[in-house]
Amino acid sequence: MVISQWKWFRTATQLKGSVLKAVLPRVFLCGIFGFVVSALYKQGWAVNWPTADSLIPSLVLGLLLVFRTNTAYDRFWEGRKAWGSIIISVRNLARQIWVSIPEPEPEDRQAKIEALRLLLAFAVATKLHLRGEPVTNELAAFMPLSRYEKLQGMNNPPLEVAFWIGDYLQQQHRRDRLSIQQLTAMYGLLDNLVAALSACERIQKTPIPLAYVIHLKQLLLIYCLSLPFQMVKTQGWQTGLTVALVSFALLGIEEIGIEIEDPFGHDANDLPLDAICGTMQRNIEDLISLSPSFYTVPEALTVTSLLDASEDF
Amino acid sequence: MVISQWKWFRTATQLKGSVLKAVLPRVFLCGIFGFVVSALYKQGWAVNWPTADSLIPSLVLGLLLVFRTNTAYDRFWEGRKAWGSIIISVRNLARQIWVSIPEPEPEDRQAKIEALRLLLAFAVATKLHLRGEPVTNELAAFMPLSRYEKLQGMNNPPLEVAFWIGDYLQQQHRRDRLSIQQLTAMYGLLDNLVAALSACERIQKTPIPLAYVIHLKQLLLIYCLSLPFQMVKTQGWQTGLTVALVSFALLGIEEIGIEIEDPFGHDANDLPLDAICGTMQRNIEDLISLSPSFYTVPEALTVTSLLDASEDF
Amino acid sequence: MVISQWKWFRTATQLKGSVLKAVLPRVFLCGIFGFVVSALYKQGWAVNWPTADSLIPSLVLGLLLVFRTNTAYDRFWEGRKAWGSIIISVRNLARQIWVSIPEPEPEDRQAKIEALRLLLAFAVATKLHLRGEPVTNELAAFMPLSRYEKLQGMNNPPLEVAFWIGDYLQQQHRRDRLSIQQLTAMYGLLDNLVAALSACERIQKTPIPLAYVIHLKQLLLIYCLSLPFQMVKTQGWQTGLTVALVSFALLGIEEIGIEIEDPFGHDANDLPLDAICGTMQRNIEDLISLSPSFYTVPEALTVTSLLDASEDF
Amino acid sequence: MVISQWKWFRTATQLKGSVLKAVLPRVFLCGIFGFVVSALYKQGWAVNWPTADSLIPSLVLGLLLVFRTNTAYDRFWEGRKAWGSIIISVRNLARQIWVSIPEPEPEDRQAKIEALRLLLAFAVATKLHLRGEPVTNELAAFMPLSRYEKLQGMNNPPLEVAFWIGDYLQQQHRRDRLSIQQLTAMYGLLDNLVAALSACERIQKTPIPLAYVIHLKQLLLIYCLSLPFQMVKTQGWQTGLTVALVSFALLGIEEIGIEIEDPFGHDANDLPLDAICGTMQRNIEDLISLSPSFYTVPEALTVTSLLDASEDF
Amino acid sequence: MVISQWKWFRTATQLKGSVLKAVLPRVFLCGIFGFVVSALYKQGWAVNWPTADSLIPSLVLGLLLVFRTNTAYDRFWEGRKAWGSIIISVRNLARQIWVSIPEPEPEDRQAKIEALRLLLAFAVATKLHLRGEPVTNELAAFMPLSRYEKLQGMNNPPLEVAFWIGDYLQQQHRRDRLSIQQLTAMYGLLDNLVAALSACERIQKTPIPLAYVIHLKQLLLIYCLSLPFQMVKTQGWQTGLTVALVSFALLGIEEIGIEIEDPFGHDANDLPLDAICGTMQRNIEDLISLSPSFYTVPEALTVTSLLDASEDF
Repeated sequence: MVISQWKWFRTATQLKGSVLKAVLPRVFLCGIFGFVVSALYKQGWAVNWPTADSLIPSLVLGLLLVFRTNTAYDRFWEGRKAWGSIIISVRNLARQIWVSIPEPEPEDRQAKIEALRLLLAFAVATKLHLRGEPVTNELAAFMPLSRYEKLQGMNNPPLEVAFWIGDYLQQQHRRDRLSIQQLTAMYGLLDNLVAALSACERIQKTPIPLAYVIHLKQLLLIYCLSLPFQMVKTQGWQTGLTVALVSFALLGIEEIGIEIEDPFGHDANDLPLDAICGTMQRNIEDLISLSPSFYTVPEALTVTSLLDASEDF
Repeated sequence: MVISQWKWFRTATQLKGSVLKAVLPRVFLCGIFGFVVSALYKQGWAVNWPTADSLIPSLVLGLLLVFRTNTAYDRFWEGRKAWGSIIISVRNLARQIWVSIPEPEPEDRQAKIEALRLLLAFAVATKLHLRGEPVTNELAAFMPLSRYEKLQGMNNPPLEVAFWIGDYLQQQHRRDRLSIQQLTAMYGLLDNLVAALSACERIQKTPIPLAYVIHLKQLLLIYCLSLPFQMVKTQGWQTGLTVALVSFALLGIEEIGIEIEDPFGHDANDLPLDAICGTMQRNIEDLISLSPSFYTVPEALTVTSLLDASEDF
Repeated sequence: MVISQWKWFRTATQLKGSVLKAVLPRVFLCGIFGFVVSALYKQGWAVNWPTADSLIPSLVLGLLLVFRTNTAYDRFWEGRKAWGSIIISVRNLARQIWVSIPEPEPEDRQAKIEALRLLLAFAVATKLHLRGEPVTNELAAFMPLSRYEKLQGMNNPPLEVAFWIGDYLQQQHRRDRLSIQQLTAMYGLLDNLVAALSACERIQKTPIPLAYVIHLKQLLLIYCLSLPFQMVKTQGWQTGLTVALVSFALLGIEEIGIEIEDPFGHDANDLPLDAICGTMQRNIEDLISLSPSFYTVPEALTVTSLLDASEDF
Repeated sequence: MVISQWKWFRTATQLKGSVLKAVLPRVFLCGIFGFVVSALYKQGWAVNWPTADSLIPSLVLGLLLVFRTNTAYDRFWEGRKAWGSIIISVRNLARQIWVSIPEPEPEDRQAKIEALRLLLAFAVATKLHLRGEPVTNELAAFMPLSRYEKLQGMNNPPLEVAFWIGDYLQQQHRRDRLSIQQLTAMYGLLDNLVAALSACERIQKTPIPLAYVIHLKQLLLIYCLSLPFQMVKTQGWQTGLTVALVSFALLGIEEIGIEIEDPFGHDANDLPLDAICGTMQRNIEDLISLSPSFYTVPEALTVTSLLDASEDF
Repeated sequence: MVISQWKWFRTATQLKGSVLKAVLPRVFLCGIFGFVVSALYKQGWAVNWPTADSLIPSLVLGLLLVFRTNTAYDRFWEGRKAWGSIIISVRNLARQIWVSIPEPEPEDRQAKIEALRLLLAFAVATKLHLRGEPVTNELAAFMPLSRYEKLQGMNNPPLEVAFWIGDYLQQQHRRDRLSIQQLTAMYGLLDNLVAALSACERIQKTPIPLAYVIHLKQLLLIYCLSLPFQMVKTQGWQTGLTVALVSFALLGIEEIGIEIEDPFGHDANDLPLDAICGTMQRNIEDLISLSPSFYTVPEALTVTSLLDASEDF
């Protein structure tokens, strides 16, 4: 009990992941401005402006801030869903490849493992592409050197990886290892991968309309700067502190929206893309350690499925 | 009538499932602090701070709390939907396996029942995986010992169970018990199971961005601690009680959000995963008690579907 | 014009479907309490508590109430969508069965009509299952007696009906009346039926988390009971009436949430499940009155589709 | 610039599409009532009721109104989406029919055009069905007289049109003009049409729960009628005007919700169903003016696809 | 750090993309009106109207504004999603065409490239169609002259392009270059393209119901014009400035909604459709630079897939 209470306070005062550092300069400026106004007021200047809350109705400001918060969070969560979709498609496609494609010749097994690695390469390439980073060594481990070099000249590396996966599947079909129905279903999963990639690009390249961003900042400015004039009469020397606290509350919410709305970076508040890619890699490794049941009847299978049932396998 | 009224009050004062116990220490602290402030005020200290509601606009705080509530509930409900999707896919996959796969030999029936048990194993393994619990005896009942032991070394046990189900289906297809079209459709349902598993993992592993959590706690702290200064002049000795009530209202809402956002645990406010798994088990048992119609024409069926229509069955 | 105005007022004062009766006792209690407080105040007791709205900020209460309202309505509407999905799948499955399955022998037609009746049985069984009612005569009209009796011992009758429908379709495929592609597509529609059933069960069995329900009731209680102390100074003897009106507004909203969140019952505010089932029955009857075009070429059809095109029909 | 400013004011004062006319009588009544109260007050009656905003918290009322607005608009937009889905399915189904079905005999072309007309008939029949209008001449143009007459006796005409479309497609398959895979895909599009029809029916036949409607009207009544007592002291003779303006704002929002929530009628605020049907008709006409490429190789096509590739075309 | 702070202020005062210019005239008018009222008040006129915030409750106005903001943004985002769907379908369809269709004869390759160009033509034609612009040279680059001329007489050019793509695919199937299963899957992607086009048309042609637009403008007018009367007593000569600031906040939000709700134009706040089309073009060009693996085994492929596996390829 005591521990959970203590944890609550520790989180409340935590610095990492907080927006405190980002908004502090602006909060400080607002506080100084509030102090200056109260000093002028004490000197007898007529800086008192009794607007009684109606200057930028705090309701309108609050609702706009929540709108900002909601849309930013929606983008964050939609980005997470797109990555969830990548995980799902990678897992399903890997399992289907592993279970469905027979391995009559030793090199088939190697080709299958290479295909599974390409699935991981797709995820990693997507991560790098979204972060605007070049094709690095991180990708080299998942493919032959020739492909790795080819990848470096491309506008959109993940799309090329998807092309290779599709090419591998089509080839297996042409060699009668994969029925047309399963090929089509796997193409559907591959389509999902490209859809998730495109969804991430959509989130990244279409920010919240500029007009909202500007209008919200303008209203925040007007609100924070008019605050001292409204409260200097009642608050006196406390004006600066109050203004700083209020502007911390408001600017902090806006700042979180800014940090969250592009969730593909390296910050504490971004999606843990490296961990997600690591999870997929472990799942694939686990899969490779399992043996599909056609290992147990290799003879029969080769005969039946590759010669007789050629049209239906 | 009287009963329903009475029930209303009983629920309102119920302790189980309530967050009262969790927030009481913090509420108590706030009340004490309010009492101290009022005592100082009565001693003549200048602790009066006439901010007239504008220090942390209560609107902003309220909207942030509702944002917290909404997102936490969305996560709860999304987790429930993912489990609903598991129920749906298990029911449909079980029915299709039971109806579609013929049983020319006695051991085929046993294999079918084993496959249905694997579906239940998937659900139970997902439950344990989400709760971070090890592979326990609960799972042993649904599979042979060799598989159960294999499962214990895996990073993600449900994925392995999905692999076995897929392997069983592919095997039935290879033995001409299942047409490629039905195999593909069943793979789609299996994909749904893995998608639901992945959705649950997504909910569990991606909390609400830390920046929101911290900022909300900070605003709550500032709000509750500044409250006594604002109201001590009008409320006098009642200050402590009022502050305690207000902080109970606010901290309670935040606490609910915390409890709800990871809905896969053992608490009163979590999803009833054990009951859900039990429901699926009863459904499967009911299904096994029913006889698909090919039992009634076993002769004709064997001849027609297994010899002549071998490519199309 | 006058009529529409008049209708407006009549609806506003309508009793049926209103929550007035349900909340009246509690509203009355609050009013009495308010009257007692004002009486004490007039006697000179110090029951005045000048909290100036900050005791349970009305914003927080209001937003919680709206959260309650939204989630309850979402559940209502989701339940409606699930039933809409049942209607859609029944209509499409019925049309496909009627159009696609040929009737070379007279009893085939009877079997088709029986299958359509099973679709209706699914809907009715779902209705009864959701209402927690036993398998009644309402269902007996849609199936042979033997099945009706079998149904009575089942945990989840609709699932069994779905099994029978699936079994019928698989049988048609085995007898070469239905191609494997159409069978698979129809299975997809059958899966949708089970998905809708499961969605309804999910809504019914997963209430809004208890912690919200309790916390909201507690805040409502504190709000309504503290109200007279806050307003007794300004309102005097009117306190009781005002408290009663306010508590009517608030408790009424909460009560609606309670009534709406489980929408499968018999109340005025529940979904019209009986009417929905009736609509489906009329649609099926209309369908049976129509003749698919293979009646006009019965000879050719029998020859072509049942002998030659056996693998492709 | 001047023009856009001018347009703004013209829209603000526009009568057509506005709810002014609908709410005016009630607004007028409220104003009169306010005037009477102020007159009584001036006569010295004790009609002053200093509730200080807490009688029906305006927040609760406002949030309920917005809830009303949101749900009504959601229904409007969902209805629009259902019609969008009809447009999409009609376009796709028409294109697939036009491109995929060969025309070896002259009457085949005529049959195809008739099928496209049935698609339009489905849309028009849905429109009439949702508006509760009988089967009129508008439909007669799209089908033979015999069908038109048959349609008049049906409970749900669009469903029957869907049956005819399905029957046409199944017939083409039986005559080897359409592969089973394409037939199944087209059935999927036909299912979408029926799903969209059913979604519209759902919106139309399931209003917002009565309890909400009644409670909102009651709170609006209490709010508007208690307003003069609250403000008569400060406003004096202006009370009537103020009450009229406030009630215009509130009743107007509620009235819009009423007008919007059933969007299938003939009002200015309803969906432009006639225009939508017209668009579809133009799209179909454009399509008919195009020639699929099998016209250019009629000889080869007849031989290949109708004799040799009979099972696969 | 300093840079990011500076950027914040620069954005706040940015003119491009802001709605300042659009609302300035109306804001100016409101300010003038406020000044006139204060002047009259100083002259001793009885223009003081002490409504104490209840004339158009600011809550109702604020919530309506947020409703406007939300729906406008939803439309913007839905339009973006539709274009995202176009990107996804173009990428997937292009990849499948490139990988799946063999090229035994040299002109086949040219035909494939032409088909990919048609995909781009679809996107560009959709862009022009949504903007109400005629078929221009921008399209001519993607198709033969004859088709380009044909396109100019059409009501809905993108639909015609979709027809040509479908025709190309059907032709490949007829020539045994594309299995029926892959044809059906590609038709599904083509259907998605038409669905996205139709979704954009729906957003464009169905504005927010007129009744909302009018009512919101009326309430804004009443609010802004009654403001000076309410505050002239406390604010004196500052009335004009305050009214201007408040009306800037409110009218600005409404104006953003107007600009955002039709996101297909050329404004700074519209979707970057030209850039999106450019991205697709680069993706297609990258794809064409890659060689599917059947180039490496042309001999074997021709023999196997075009002669033997003719029905299954």
